[in-house]
Amino acid sequence: MYGILARKRDGGELSRAEIDRVIEGAVAGTIPDYQLTALLMAIFCRGLTPRETADLTLAMVASGAEVDLSSLPGPTVDKHSTGGVGDKTTLVLGPLLAAAGLTVAKMSGRGLGHTGGTLDKLEAIPGMRTDLGPARMIEQARSIGLAVVAQGAELAPADGVLYALRDVTATVESIPLIASSIMSKKLAAGAQSIVLDVKTGAGAFMRDPDDAFALAHAMVEIGTSAGRRVVAVITGMEQPLGLAVGNALEVEEAVQTLRGGGPADLRDLCLILGGELLVLAEQAASPAAGAARLAALLDDGSALERFRRFVAAQGGDPRVADMPEELLPEAPLRLDLTVTTAGYVAAIDALTIGEAARDLGAGRQRKGDPIDPAAGLLLRAKVGDRLEAGDAWATLFASDQRRLAAGAARLQSALRMGVSFPAPPRSIYGTVRAGGREERSHQ
Amino acid sequence: MYGILARKRDGGELSRAEIDRVIEGAVAGTIPDYQLTALLMAIFCRGLTPRETADLTLAMVASGAEVDLSSLPGPTVDKHSTGGVGDKTTLVLGPLLAAAGLTVAKMSGRGLGHTGGTLDKLEAIPGMRTDLGPARMIEQARSIGLAVVAQGAELAPADGVLYALRDVTATVESIPLIASSIMSKKLAAGAQSIVLDVKTGAGAFMRDPDDAFALAHAMVEIGTSAGRRVVAVITGMEQPLGLAVGNALEVEEAVQTLRGGGPADLRDLCLILGGELLVLAEQAASPAAGAARLAALLDDGSALERFRRFVAAQGGDPRVADMPEELLPEAPLRLDLTVTTAGYVAAIDALTIGEAARDLGAGRQRKGDPIDPAAGLLLRAKVGDRLEAGDAWATLFASDQRRLAAGAARLQSALRMGVSFPAPPRSIYGTVRAGGREERSHQ
Repeated sequence: MYGILARKRDGGELSRAEIDRVIEGAVAGTIPDYQLTALLMAIFCRGLTPRETADLTLAMVASGAEVDLSSLPGPTVDKHSTGGVGDKTTLVLGPLLAAAGLTVAKMSGRGLGHTGGTLDKLEAIPGMRTDLGPARMIEQARSIGLAVVAQGAELAPADGVLYALRDVTATVESIPLIASSIMSKKLAAGAQSIVLDVKTGAGAFMRDPDDAFALAHAMVEIGTSAGRRVVAVITGMEQPLGLAVGNALEVEEAVQTLRGGGPADLRDLCLILGGELLVLAEQAASPAAGAARLAALLDDGSALERFRRFVAAQGGDPRVADMPEELLPEAPLRLDLTVTTAGYVAAIDALTIGEAARDLGAGRQRKGDPIDPAAGLLLRAKVGDRLEAGDAWATLFASDQRRLAAGAARLQSALRMGVSFPAPPRSIYGTVRAGGREERSHQ
Repeated sequence: MYGILARKRDGGELSRAEIDRVIEGAVAGTIPDYQLTALLMAIFCRGLTPRETADLTLAMVASGAEVDLSSLPGPTVDKHSTGGVGDKTTLVLGPLLAAAGLTVAKMSGRGLGHTGGTLDKLEAIPGMRTDLGPARMIEQARSIGLAVVAQGAELAPADGVLYALRDVTATVESIPLIASSIMSKKLAAGAQSIVLDVKTGAGAFMRDPDDAFALAHAMVEIGTSAGRRVVAVITGMEQPLGLAVGNALEVEEAVQTLRGGGPADLRDLCLILGGELLVLAEQAASPAAGAARLAALLDDGSALERFRRFVAAQGGDPRVADMPEELLPEAPLRLDLTVTTAGYVAAIDALTIGEAARDLGAGRQRKGDPIDPAAGLLLRAKVGDRLEAGDAWATLFASDQRRLAAGAARLQSALRMGVSFPAPPRSIYGTVRAGGREERSHQ
């Protein structure tokens, strides 16, 4: 370990065998934490080559179980988002892709800090279970094309060990370490084709678009070198995605979108990510053609029908697809926030919105904290909308006055009004494909 | 601690208060090792400013006891060497400076790896004790101007904590960390004026002269900013200093030098370092004038007489100054190494010599290992000397055949012969004084 530390400290490259030894020692506990954290800091300062990053990822995959999806019919696909506010795309995209004939056997996580998690959103549906385990996940994916379950600790356990140490040593924000952490779990989860939604902007982990592109390149390169088909879409997270932030509220918005309605930005993002996946899975000639096919499946009810079967298969009440407002938990307390002067919405800071939703009870500060599925907020306007004095711009939902007051207090600072029509925030920054091909979109 | 890690990781500067908090937490055990090692690696990669380095040193000094030498008569002086092979200068310089009217209350360490330690050398003298503690050290320094005792764990304990972590995380070789480690103990030991002998070359910790100068600058700046008078002399350690390597053998060579004889390189180095100290202590107008005064004290027996009193005061037999060969322990086994062809000695690798001496029993691989005071080697030639076929170039001393064979085997590779007279290895590379004043000498 001393030689490994000395080499990385001096900016050298570690061999595959050395990286394997580190990961094996980390999981077995034979390398002490104080050496692992020194190595993580050296990696933070000196970086990893693409080859080292790929080897680190494969070593983390090899540290645990790998899900074998090879027996499933149809192309297996997966999606990962680096974390946003109001991002309920998985709830729409899962049924939509299954309706298009793809197989989605997906492992998801819970929300933490200002970002939500798919498992928390699904569990807002009465009866819905996510603790199925890989075997039942595969069976359900075989029968209805879709399962979304809790990611087990058996996948890439080395990532958990390293992440816990990074978290307390200021070594989280390293692009190769983030890329290998995400991709180790995606690779272990077994899908052939993977679309990565790399968020950038105020509410994203990667605030700087250049960092988001760099992370996208690192992840695409890892996945490709592991024999998977991977594309990354870099998307904006200046304001929340859609209007709903909070678990039951987001399920309701996902249902609207599955019915062919819903907010335009949410529908568009689902179609873009899905279109890319259809191309990767050789089911469409171009992303646009794939998106058009998926749009039809939203509009003709096919995706909604697949959602019903998905909810029923995991123990939930499928009528949530038809009368979500009656079946989903409802918060006893509501509060409208209004604007005092007329103008245009210039900015809605996604980070502050996410933190306010957490204050209201929709999220958690620490792992394991309970959440309130009914809590959250609905935006009544988005950037560029015109509001008159007295108009509500957001409605808050909470189960107790203390939380309502805390969320309202924080939310005030999320809105910025202007006198003229603002430049719209960018929704798509570009794509990164295998072989380092990058396209930046100019809005 | 997270903010401190994040700032240093990003190349930022830590405040005095932050550095104090780290050192207090390290000593109290309230900051876990895995955070300390991450910080040490971040410091290794990003460096410390001179201000941070000085603050770190002062925080380490404040972590423990400080020796108060202010009641002592005469200017108090100290010397530190960064570690060499055959370096017995303290044994000569201590009595010599005391004879010149300076006060030397010095704390020293033991040998480790390929370098020797002053305490081990002194303890080769029958009866000699070094475990006196600071109070007896001060009393003895008051009465005879000289005491050399074991450095206690109560001085700069933070350095011990950090060094143990650096040792296992490949973060030893950081110039600001080395400088603060050395200077924290020198400052805590209390002398007003300090000369630093920074070694460079094959047998030195700093193999590259530029690194040695950088370390010298860092240490002089620390000491100066703490209100001490400090000068650093950068000296060569390509071949051993003098001819003797091994504890009793080095005492004997030191006695020869105190008698006005001894190897020229050893005598010269003592006069150069001592001359600098005389200037710092305002006892000489120039290093050359100081050196000339000290040379007279070697030649007229004053230094030797002070050595007798010093040995007697610490329990040793003062007759060692007159008949060292009869009082010092003698190794039962000897072996001459000879050259097979005539030529000039082109190189005697100090590192290999140091390792061979350790193999013979003169040094230790790990802290606490016992040593054999009689073991070691005497060089019969130095770089530039002419040898004929069959001439001995070294004599080995050991107490058992296994060690003798191990030392002899290693020693073979230390000598390089050439057909023409070689360029002599440099003995003095230059000096660094307060205010960043650097002089490089050109031989």
